[in-house]
Amino acid sequence: MIRYPERLNLCEVGLRDGLQNEKQLLTTEQKAEILRRLVSAGFRTIEVGSFMNPKAVPQMADTDELFSVCREFPHVEFRALAANLRGVQRAAACGCKKVKLNVSASREHNLRNLNRTPEESVMKFAECAELAKSSGIELSGSISMPFASPWEGATPVGTVDGIIEAYLSVGVTEISLSDASGMAAPAQVGKLCRHVRRKYPGVSWWLHFHNTRGLAAANMVAAMDAGMTCFDSSFGGLGGCPFIPNAAGNLPTEDAVHMCDECGIETGIRLEDVMEISRMAAEWLGHPMESLVLRAGSNRSLMERIRSKE
Amino acid sequence: MIRYPERLNLCEVGLRDGLQNEKQLLTTEQKAEILRRLVSAGFRTIEVGSFMNPKAVPQMADTDELFSVCREFPHVEFRALAANLRGVQRAAACGCKKVKLNVSASREHNLRNLNRTPEESVMKFAECAELAKSSGIELSGSISMPFASPWEGATPVGTVDGIIEAYLSVGVTEISLSDASGMAAPAQVGKLCRHVRRKYPGVSWWLHFHNTRGLAAANMVAAMDAGMTCFDSSFGGLGGCPFIPNAAGNLPTEDAVHMCDECGIETGIRLEDVMEISRMAAEWLGHPMESLVLRAGSNRSLMERIRSKE
Repeated sequence: MIRYPERLNLCEVGLRDGLQNEKQLLTTEQKAEILRRLVSAGFRTIEVGSFMNPKAVPQMADTDELFSVCREFPHVEFRALAANLRGVQRAAACGCKKVKLNVSASREHNLRNLNRTPEESVMKFAECAELAKSSGIELSGSISMPFASPWEGATPVGTVDGIIEAYLSVGVTEISLSDASGMAAPAQVGKLCRHVRRKYPGVSWWLHFHNTRGLAAANMVAAMDAGMTCFDSSFGGLGGCPFIPNAAGNLPTEDAVHMCDECGIETGIRLEDVMEISRMAAEWLGHPMESLVLRAGSNRSLMERIRSKE
Repeated sequence: MIRYPERLNLCEVGLRDGLQNEKQLLTTEQKAEILRRLVSAGFRTIEVGSFMNPKAVPQMADTDELFSVCREFPHVEFRALAANLRGVQRAAACGCKKVKLNVSASREHNLRNLNRTPEESVMKFAECAELAKSSGIELSGSISMPFASPWEGATPVGTVDGIIEAYLSVGVTEISLSDASGMAAPAQVGKLCRHVRRKYPGVSWWLHFHNTRGLAAANMVAAMDAGMTCFDSSFGGLGGCPFIPNAAGNLPTEDAVHMCDECGIETGIRLEDVMEISRMAAEWLGHPMESLVLRAGSNRSLMERIRSKE
């Protein structure tokens, strides 16, 4: 019998993982408008952007500026991605208090591209961890493709364990398992989630699913059954995967919230407010969104429509 | 811990629930081509069409003719929908050996439109059951919206029980729970499936999910966990819902097969063959398909693509 939590935490990642895949750049004012509306929709954890080289990721060039908007909401946790010491320095300078580091779980990929193992990549974050500590910044560690990668297929669980232990050794105790390639399937998600929760009980876990192959919600159910309660999602389902042309994006926030609403799981997020944000962003970005709840409407709105016709 | 079956049965319903929602009518030859390819892809249960009034549902007008193609494959179960005695007569005349009847679980809907309860609707199938028996036709009974309906919201379990018992009283022991409005969510699916399996152990169950709100795969997982092993799906995700404009269609066969492949659940269906059928049908119908696996490719094909580039 599947276990569902009474409540769960959703982190909205549309401003980061969503917008970084868009050709159309939004203005800082547009992003600030989305940010304020996300807070008003009920989010208490929001991924604002990333501190990458603006030449490489122009979509995220104004992340530092956006953190001045974040100051309006001291009760909300705003996080941003960083790849190196320079990123943590920018975080410290703009008042970002939660930085997420990332490593790929594909050993082959890492070795070919960076000439080091994933664990060695994490160990190089030690200097980031030191600066973060002295700057009052909390660190979160993300592991991309912990379920499967296009290079190796199923990721060996020993590789994931090694990365987790490397993160722990540099003082990172919040870890995100991120199915960036959208290859995860429920049976494997449940298995890995149960394993890491049992083996590393002191870690706070986040799960990040893409709907590349239509399994984001099913994977979320499998992770909930394994005791996970913190999930990333993206308004409208924005986001994509650099490996796969035309692939669907992140788990759409609307679809996740709707599922939770219908399953009696509290999220604290107002669905209609998120749909309003997605409609606004769709207009700014010039294309429709992936969220199916956005297209079809919620169960509740369907019932209202039927009643009003009678 | 979620239970997955070792193997499951998929019934391909694209020729019926898929095509009946399409503006573009396919020719009988095109349908026959799809039919033959579905058998070749591994399907052993296929929903071919329906014996409705051709004026009301012109997309299904040639169902009788298609059954002459079905005779080529005596090892496959071909089924079709019928609404009344006339439908069962047509089934008997064209050699269809499995007829599916349908009733809506919305009491309010039934009373307003037909001036009878769902149970009374089923009892009126008694004459169909008699003719079916004398013609060597097996009957299957479908229950639309057993989870929720736009009229009542959550469907009371007593209503579903009443319909099941009415089906049993006219001799129908294969029953399909069909989330036609796409309102079902995993927690409720698991609950109802566990309930009906426990209460009516002699019934063979089918589950039919629409991906209207992105939950078809998650609902399938919830049903599998409750012990269900027979599911409808539609190539490309064809199909829709008359209540909801722009809503997604049925659980896409590709997405279901891919999930099963990745979870180690045997279906006997070759994914690439189904994708080929969907691409062909998309060209004939003049619009893209909903299946995300069709868009992104399978995990395996992603791995092959990456390898061939290196």
